[in-house]
Amino acid sequence: MARQNFVLHKLDSTSKARLGTLYTAHGAIKTPVFMPVGTQGTVKAVAQDRLESLGVEIFLCNSYHLHLRPGEDLIAEAGGLHEFISWKKSLLTDSGGYQVFSLTSLVGVSDEGVTFKSHLDGSLHHITPELSMEIQQKLGADIIMAFDQCVGFPASVQEEKVAAQRTLLWAKKCKETFSSSWQQLFGIVQGGTQKELREFCAREIVAMGFDGYALGGLSVGEPKPLMYEMIEVVEPYLPEEKPRYLMGVGAPDDILEAVARGIDMFDCVLPTRNARNGCLLTRRGKLNITRSEFARDFQPPDSDCSCYTCSKFSRAYLRHLFKAGEILAAELATIHNLFFMLELMRKIREALEGGYFQDFKQDFLATYNSGF
Amino acid sequence: MARQNFVLHKLDSTSKARLGTLYTAHGAIKTPVFMPVGTQGTVKAVAQDRLESLGVEIFLCNSYHLHLRPGEDLIAEAGGLHEFISWKKSLLTDSGGYQVFSLTSLVGVSDEGVTFKSHLDGSLHHITPELSMEIQQKLGADIIMAFDQCVGFPASVQEEKVAAQRTLLWAKKCKETFSSSWQQLFGIVQGGTQKELREFCAREIVAMGFDGYALGGLSVGEPKPLMYEMIEVVEPYLPEEKPRYLMGVGAPDDILEAVARGIDMFDCVLPTRNARNGCLLTRRGKLNITRSEFARDFQPPDSDCSCYTCSKFSRAYLRHLFKAGEILAAELATIHNLFFMLELMRKIREALEGGYFQDFKQDFLATYNSGF
Repeated sequence: MARQNFVLHKLDSTSKARLGTLYTAHGAIKTPVFMPVGTQGTVKAVAQDRLESLGVEIFLCNSYHLHLRPGEDLIAEAGGLHEFISWKKSLLTDSGGYQVFSLTSLVGVSDEGVTFKSHLDGSLHHITPELSMEIQQKLGADIIMAFDQCVGFPASVQEEKVAAQRTLLWAKKCKETFSSSWQQLFGIVQGGTQKELREFCAREIVAMGFDGYALGGLSVGEPKPLMYEMIEVVEPYLPEEKPRYLMGVGAPDDILEAVARGIDMFDCVLPTRNARNGCLLTRRGKLNITRSEFARDFQPPDSDCSCYTCSKFSRAYLRHLFKAGEILAAELATIHNLFFMLELMRKIREALEGGYFQDFKQDFLATYNSGF
Repeated sequence: MARQNFVLHKLDSTSKARLGTLYTAHGAIKTPVFMPVGTQGTVKAVAQDRLESLGVEIFLCNSYHLHLRPGEDLIAEAGGLHEFISWKKSLLTDSGGYQVFSLTSLVGVSDEGVTFKSHLDGSLHHITPELSMEIQQKLGADIIMAFDQCVGFPASVQEEKVAAQRTLLWAKKCKETFSSSWQQLFGIVQGGTQKELREFCAREIVAMGFDGYALGGLSVGEPKPLMYEMIEVVEPYLPEEKPRYLMGVGAPDDILEAVARGIDMFDCVLPTRNARNGCLLTRRGKLNITRSEFARDFQPPDSDCSCYTCSKFSRAYLRHLFKAGEILAAELATIHNLFFMLELMRKIREALEGGYFQDFKQDFLATYNSGF
């Protein structure tokens, strides 16, 4: 696993921020990157051609959900995920660990694996690190994740320790099982909110050697400063020449803070989930388009934005669509929020290129927190 | 109301079928035309740019629904429906008559108007022909419809007679109230399933003089041959130089039979509503994509079709999206069904142009009814 999949173009002089390119079997991805979430093989409410026009270079699908429905064998038969969902650019699958521990009724966890009941029909399932590799190799995303055990916040020192040790054991098993010639396998650093445990996990995972390194078990309810601290604790152990991925994080302020601490990749359901609830991301923070004050507001949803939604439609129309329960509401809001996230990442990369990342970060956060 | 809004290019030599162009303040519409339904100011599940790429030249919005929510005053304030929903081509609004008589709890009907309870919140409303004109003029669609009373099937001779007489009275009131310089007002021929009553209504409505003539109260449960007969009964009374619109009809076989009997315009929710239920229109009839036999069928939904959905995705993927309850299922299926309907109309016009309409009709119906 010595292949080169990441080129570091520039290190920010006043922070740990990095400008780079991640290469996969399906193309080049400019980093820092935000990856939209397409849980069941579709980014909810937007078609693949729309994602492409938005400039999405990679998105994330969910092994747990796809394993239960329609199943990895069916997807392999279709020729893999790219073929099945008709997406030519890059894909990442998570291992299912997070979903198994958050969505299901757990029946048992051991070093061998996890037994749980499906959230769909209560049927009994058993996933091992080996099986997670098999599932993800059949799905055939460009980047796949080691199977890990995630604990919530707060958790006891003992719980965090057990989960971290088990994640290391499982990472080893995943690496031994992984046999793809073209996929990339990322290891996950767990360790909860304990500094020493995070450091220990980082050292161990890096020693095993993966194509990239993820920080898991963050953004699970802990205070933001604690999350930022955990990134700072882990970062020095991560090799410069490999991509770093902060899992499940996608709030604009968190992304800026994490980029400043050396993170290259992000994913989060919030921009798309918020959109479906009428919550739009704008330069000046979140805007709930369903509020009655927007009923007769014929301005664009976000006048600073040039997305399809903001170029063509008004706040009043978008609010009407939400109030009337129309499907188009979800699509137009999702287009806007994804455009906003991709623009944010583009501006971050521009600022890194131009050497003014700290200024950009400060300005962005000041405006973002100023409100309307 | 002597303006010319319709040009008849060709009369079929072996049927009453007509090839024409309908002109509105927002463009030219090739007829025969199928108009998708956008009840609440959006054709469910597809964005306006998608409708434009599909080649939609006109679609229908619903006065009753828009009157209740968000209200015609708000839409007028936005600059009218075209501005509000961001649609540059033509629009038609129905009068609300059909919805008032089918969706609401009726409180009272008189020659003066209708009192009913909203299907949304049970609030009391009163609509008169005069108010329907005011609502539709504020909405500002290119074509608006006279307020009519629709009876179901079966109905008594007496019911049909009362509704027909009232519709004539209301048509007169609508015409007197109508004051737009640029909108077009269509009259509606009612009369249930009674030959003489239909003839009487047709003569009376045509004598009043409208920009176009619609047949209402059909496709409400009567046998198809009876519907075709009613078209035949009315058609001779309709002036050649005005467009004829069969309301609420959109099954491919009905469209072909009605075109052969001299109809130019159609609308129906079924292609879009069926789509959202997983029912796809194909050359060989309807296909329910959610059936288990399609789980591992990696062919396009309709191999004869070149729409976005059929060019990019498989039956298996579409079925997966429906089974997983994904929004994209509705969008992809709707794109396909609208494409199918617009293609059907394009082929009908081509056949009329080329003088082979009867052959096309026969071939189409034979294949359409052959099944899979």
